[in-house]
Amino acid sequence: MEHPPLTPQLAFLLEADRLKEVLRQNPIASAARRENSAEHSWHLALMAGVLARHAAEPADLLRVLPMLLIHDLVEIDAGDTFAYDEAANVTRAEREERAAERIFGMLPPGQATEFRALWDEFEAGRTPESRYANALDRLQPLLLNAASGGGTWRAHGIRREQVLKRMDPIRTALPSLWPGVLEIVDWACAEGHIL
Amino acid sequence: MEHPPLTPQLAFLLEADRLKEVLRQNPIASAARRENSAEHSWHLALMAGVLARHAAEPADLLRVLPMLLIHDLVEIDAGDTFAYDEAANVTRAEREERAAERIFGMLPPGQATEFRALWDEFEAGRTPESRYANALDRLQPLLLNAASGGGTWRAHGIRREQVLKRMDPIRTALPSLWPGVLEIVDWACAEGHIL
Repeated sequence: MEHPPLTPQLAFLLEADRLKEVLRQNPIASAARRENSAEHSWHLALMAGVLARHAAEPADLLRVLPMLLIHDLVEIDAGDTFAYDEAANVTRAEREERAAERIFGMLPPGQATEFRALWDEFEAGRTPESRYANALDRLQPLLLNAASGGGTWRAHGIRREQVLKRMDPIRTALPSLWPGVLEIVDWACAEGHIL
Repeated sequence: MEHPPLTPQLAFLLEADRLKEVLRQNPIASAARRENSAEHSWHLALMAGVLARHAAEPADLLRVLPMLLIHDLVEIDAGDTFAYDEAANVTRAEREERAAERIFGMLPPGQATEFRALWDEFEAGRTPESRYANALDRLQPLLLNAASGGGTWRAHGIRREQVLKRMDPIRTALPSLWPGVLEIVDWACAEGHIL
């Protein structure tokens, strides 16, 4: 028998559990397996706390943290769209819009609107908070691809200019970390991890 | 070749990745596999945002969220100690103290102190923030054990009084959710998931 009916908030939180089964392209640092979007979201939120003083513009962590915690929930319906897959990225917005409608719509009305607005803000990337969050979302897979010996770059034959374009939000949002990013990219090219 | 040396903060964040490989006793909701402590931490932080209005005492999310994001990092060295394993829980504090020393000690001094204090606060459970965080840490596996058809309870033959003792922090920290917890426990007993 099914467990007793849950309140809308608890039903939403149980539905969110499915994000643990959405796999990303990149491996975890040990290279043992692919990363899932729930643990990825945890890692980004942790990074947001640790790296706050590097943000170029002051960002309110009380909005950045929830934003990062929910930013990938739409993937429960829409799946993870590989950053370097240009064709899939054409249909991504529409698939994710529908997913946002359904998933955030499980919450009580006021909270549904609030969470949906936070997700829209992340996607638009036009506030200090969303610029910081998006830069972290670029930096984290760089660290994992480097640590795992090439990860996604090597598996998909990604080129230097594609990586630099992808990493560009870090240059302006986390300027003090940019030289380190370039150093990792140079190293990965020298190692043949990036073409 | 190893990637270029990282700053202490990035080295800490890469070390944190290992939490994705620490397995907990309880399954994820679909019952497909055991949950890991990184995705568990994400789930708790998400719950903290969604359920904030249910907290009996006002809790500052700017401390609750980082607290939940880091609360299990010590498991990288100390492993996950099963809540219902009384023998293992005797040695837990000492193993986790050593782990906290090493892991938070990777951060720059000021931040190491700050994160360590936040972890100590969670462990002590004597502030509104840590009481709220600890209650969520009890509620989340209840939801997953119920959704997965018995999970840990069934696998380890856990008894009703053990579950109620474990859930007790919810009664005072999230009083409006307590009747729902009892309803789930009653259902789980009726189904034979809890002895």
